[in-house]
Amino acid sequence: MRQVQFYGAISLDGYLATPQHDLQWLFDTAGGDEANTNQFLKQVDTTIMGRKTYEVTKKTMGNELLFPDKMNYVLSRTHEGQTGDATYVNQSPVDLVRHLQTLSGSNIWIVGGGQVVTDLVAENLIDEWWIQVASVLLGKGIRLFPEGNYMTRLDLMEVVRYDQLAELHFKRKLG
Amino acid sequence: MRQVQFYGAISLDGYLATPQHDLQWLFDTAGGDEANTNQFLKQVDTTIMGRKTYEVTKKTMGNELLFPDKMNYVLSRTHEGQTGDATYVNQSPVDLVRHLQTLSGSNIWIVGGGQVVTDLVAENLIDEWWIQVASVLLGKGIRLFPEGNYMTRLDLMEVVRYDQLAELHFKRKLG
Repeated sequence: MRQVQFYGAISLDGYLATPQHDLQWLFDTAGGDEANTNQFLKQVDTTIMGRKTYEVTKKTMGNELLFPDKMNYVLSRTHEGQTGDATYVNQSPVDLVRHLQTLSGSNIWIVGGGQVVTDLVAENLIDEWWIQVASVLLGKGIRLFPEGNYMTRLDLMEVVRYDQLAELHFKRKLG
Repeated sequence: MRQVQFYGAISLDGYLATPQHDLQWLFDTAGGDEANTNQFLKQVDTTIMGRKTYEVTKKTMGNELLFPDKMNYVLSRTHEGQTGDATYVNQSPVDLVRHLQTLSGSNIWIVGGGQVVTDLVAENLIDEWWIQVASVLLGKGIRLFPEGNYMTRLDLMEVVRYDQLAELHFKRKLG
């Protein structure tokens, strides 16, 4: 079955971005060019993200097309239809993932964090994780893991250092 | 000069303990016996912790003497004097650390997290960190890094895997 995967970087104190959705701290962290991002990207054909993540990522990329070789789903209760590179979906991440798993295809990348990630964790739907922990404390910002009821044990597979990033690779715990 | 060191374990979502100060999730995480805790303990002669950390740690240890070969300082605004194994200090962690650094001795262990850690980080007073990230999400609990104004870049020295723990070793960034 298609695997559901998280891949992304956080600060040591658990933030995906500053309160203003800024990522400069990450661009300033040595090691990002050493991480195997391209290898990861090759094995997914679908992305899922919240609308805020979509808009901020687009802005960060200078409004270039977002992952043009992927099927990009943006979760939104207010937007619908298609943009030049994404499809708005008014569905819970859990329902969307369960639907996509009935279709054939490659793996599915959960982009960004917050409620999308924790809703999926609560249903134990994320199969694999690559989290790059950057050697910086932000003090505040947008959390990968906001508070919620989702106590879950993962299986640590590997730890790799890319200069100032520590990449933690987890799989869903079986049994 | 005496080094100020943090050494401790957190969940993948950044918690030192559950909201009830429970640590069973950590005892259930394979790898703790492989980590070089004894080697760390040998090179500190002083500990600093908040009162809550002191009380919870004592309780977890069945009220045995806490680090009897160390000088243990417990920060408190309400308690004073000495217990069988610790000295209450009505001082900020920053003032206490600065005072201890004028005295001769081995390194100083900052036990636990929260306000004590972030006050010290804000003054850039922590020299070295060993953080063991456990392969578990708690969803809520007592954070190592509560929100605050202390954006700080550290220097990642090494990453080591102990079974289901990923140990991240940082030093204070110089210059």
